[in-house]
Amino acid sequence: MGLHVLKFGGSSVGSLKRIENVADIVAKRAKEHQVVVVLSAMQGETDALIELARHFSQSPDPREMDVLLTTGEQKSVALFSICMLARGLKARTYLGNQIAIRTSREFTRARIEHIDVEGIMKSLNSGEVVVAPGFQGVTNEGDLTTLGRGGSDTTGVALAAALKADVCDIYTDVEGVFTTDPNIEPKAKKLSSITYDEMLELASLGAKVLQTRSVEFAKKYKVPVHVRSTFKDVPGTWVLEESRLMESLVVSGITYTKNEAKVVVEGMPDRVGIAAELFTNIAEAGVGVDVIVQNVSKDGTTDISFTVLRADLRKALEVLEQNKGALKFRQVRGDDRISKISAIGNGMRSHSGVAAKMFKALAKDNINIQMISTSEIKVSCVIDEKYTELAVRVLHDCFGLDKISTKEVDDFR
Amino acid sequence: MGLHVLKFGGSSVGSLKRIENVADIVAKRAKEHQVVVVLSAMQGETDALIELARHFSQSPDPREMDVLLTTGEQKSVALFSICMLARGLKARTYLGNQIAIRTSREFTRARIEHIDVEGIMKSLNSGEVVVAPGFQGVTNEGDLTTLGRGGSDTTGVALAAALKADVCDIYTDVEGVFTTDPNIEPKAKKLSSITYDEMLELASLGAKVLQTRSVEFAKKYKVPVHVRSTFKDVPGTWVLEESRLMESLVVSGITYTKNEAKVVVEGMPDRVGIAAELFTNIAEAGVGVDVIVQNVSKDGTTDISFTVLRADLRKALEVLEQNKGALKFRQVRGDDRISKISAIGNGMRSHSGVAAKMFKALAKDNINIQMISTSEIKVSCVIDEKYTELAVRVLHDCFGLDKISTKEVDDFR
Repeated sequence: MGLHVLKFGGSSVGSLKRIENVADIVAKRAKEHQVVVVLSAMQGETDALIELARHFSQSPDPREMDVLLTTGEQKSVALFSICMLARGLKARTYLGNQIAIRTSREFTRARIEHIDVEGIMKSLNSGEVVVAPGFQGVTNEGDLTTLGRGGSDTTGVALAAALKADVCDIYTDVEGVFTTDPNIEPKAKKLSSITYDEMLELASLGAKVLQTRSVEFAKKYKVPVHVRSTFKDVPGTWVLEESRLMESLVVSGITYTKNEAKVVVEGMPDRVGIAAELFTNIAEAGVGVDVIVQNVSKDGTTDISFTVLRADLRKALEVLEQNKGALKFRQVRGDDRISKISAIGNGMRSHSGVAAKMFKALAKDNINIQMISTSEIKVSCVIDEKYTELAVRVLHDCFGLDKISTKEVDDFR
Repeated sequence: MGLHVLKFGGSSVGSLKRIENVADIVAKRAKEHQVVVVLSAMQGETDALIELARHFSQSPDPREMDVLLTTGEQKSVALFSICMLARGLKARTYLGNQIAIRTSREFTRARIEHIDVEGIMKSLNSGEVVVAPGFQGVTNEGDLTTLGRGGSDTTGVALAAALKADVCDIYTDVEGVFTTDPNIEPKAKKLSSITYDEMLELASLGAKVLQTRSVEFAKKYKVPVHVRSTFKDVPGTWVLEESRLMESLVVSGITYTKNEAKVVVEGMPDRVGIAAELFTNIAEAGVGVDVIVQNVSKDGTTDISFTVLRADLRKALEVLEQNKGALKFRQVRGDDRISKISAIGNGMRSHSGVAAKMFKALAKDNINIQMISTSEIKVSCVIDEKYTELAVRVLHDCFGLDKISTKEVDDFR
């Protein structure tokens, strides 16, 4: 008998019928293992609550916002437990303040600081299925908090870590992590396993399967995570330490994001400290920067390009115009019609030539690369947005991802 | 500056627009007084949640039911506070477990045992409007509880008592307490004041303005309660100690209930202890009994009639049939087409002849009285259900309630 944490997303509990389906899955698992169930709010619920709050304010008070948003998960755990108990199964809801999941006081984006597991261990040892709401926690002062969008993943993995669980199953509406978005490339294949680092890059570069912070947690505490379908009982994708993987693919996934915009600052004096000054201005305006590229021109001036979230573009341009006098650039322009295409793979650590292969493939289809950014296990290119889908297919094909055949990994439970 | 508790019902916060209206009322009051706001769930919300749970079970687990139902009030207090804060007003939500409102462990119908006011007093003294969800509390073990339908009234009055507030305003969708149901008798008049005892009889006899328990609380702690309209700024009805009233009407209200049924047990041996035996059987089946009437016949047998809730009629009849051997009655029959009409008035204490006047008025219109029950301040008659509305109008007229002119009471704040 092991201890398993099963997390179900909003679409998995999106209707009363689907909640019954989740009860089937949990009941089956609970026959052999101790089970902690973590649930998201029913699909659409959180958005509906945000919509209500927006009626009063575009930036509603964050503390009260968390009081509002936590009702979503509270509702789904109560309904699920009622369903389990009606079937004669033993289940018990523990809210965020009962477990307790202690967080920082950063309302709407709090971070888990400590989890008490004593109470729920007692429940588990008495044969009860513990049902916990995802996404929520409580401050030391007793105020409810939420962990940011997708925070239920983090609740699941953090509980698994605190309980030293054998596995954290992330049940969702897809069958696992794919080599790319199957909506764009129908030949996309499900990966049987990937490393935490690959998953981190995938999550932060546009694959919406897991909240980035949950993967950081999983990596830190070595929690085996199994991303799988709620609706089809087939093996999903294991997210594991590198050492537990049979083999690493050179490239295991192609991702894209369309939520960024490019800022180009042209004709700045090429002197020491100018970049620091520019990005200090940007940072002080609360705008995050992703890719940065600098070119030095012949005439003693320099051009700096960087990407920001599309929602921040206007703010970034305003800040720069305000500081034009100090920065002494010729002109600044923004472009919100870009996308970022990335190839990710743990095998890049030991294989060279991935970037070159990628650039060549894009060039062959006349896709111009505007910016490049690389890490140990990924290469990202900023391109014109209109080529996004084409680029995804070209790269998927170029790295042979439609032909991969990875062995199904052993069950790590 | 006083301390006022303002409680708003489900229809008062039934839409975002109505929540804004409540914010107007609260903002105005907060200019001159310390204010605690108690809110119900938005109209329809609690019923919708019950409906969801019923999908899984006709008798859902009560502990989990309370986790579910408390989301309704949590949602309305959060939205209200967001609305207040968006206007630049100082407001702060305290949930049942934060205040804390300690209750018994009788889930879905818990009783308030203790209220800590230290935290919210600090908030009030710093100029914040305290916003509290009605209907909910928390056990010593930290489990959420609810106080039964209408429980928000009790939260309001109990908070007013604990805080020694100057007044508890109960804002609702009617203008106050009326001499009878205006839907049946358009000539019904709003009462300017009534005693706690009258309100208790009114509440338990069909007037749906206040939860009975809230009136018990108000009486016990002498909390001046002001029942009034959310939508029209006019004086409502004060519920007060007898000594604070200018004058008492002999009859101040006519109520009716249609949720009862009659059980008639015929031909029981007329021996000592037979009634005790019968009602012990009924009580052991968990069926509550209201009016009881016994007639002794000439032939040495006796007939006993009593009323139960309609929902319990079948159970009562079953229990009696099962005990027919021991009770030795000839036959039992049930009638669920009855209603109970009551005349209530504090002045009855010092006026005789009310019952006789009532019987005469009903007889004049050929309304047969099946059972009678009296207390110090009320007379109730069980009649054929089809005469309900007629009887209400006849009695309203007979006691001249359409002509009362009571002085507006002083403001007790």
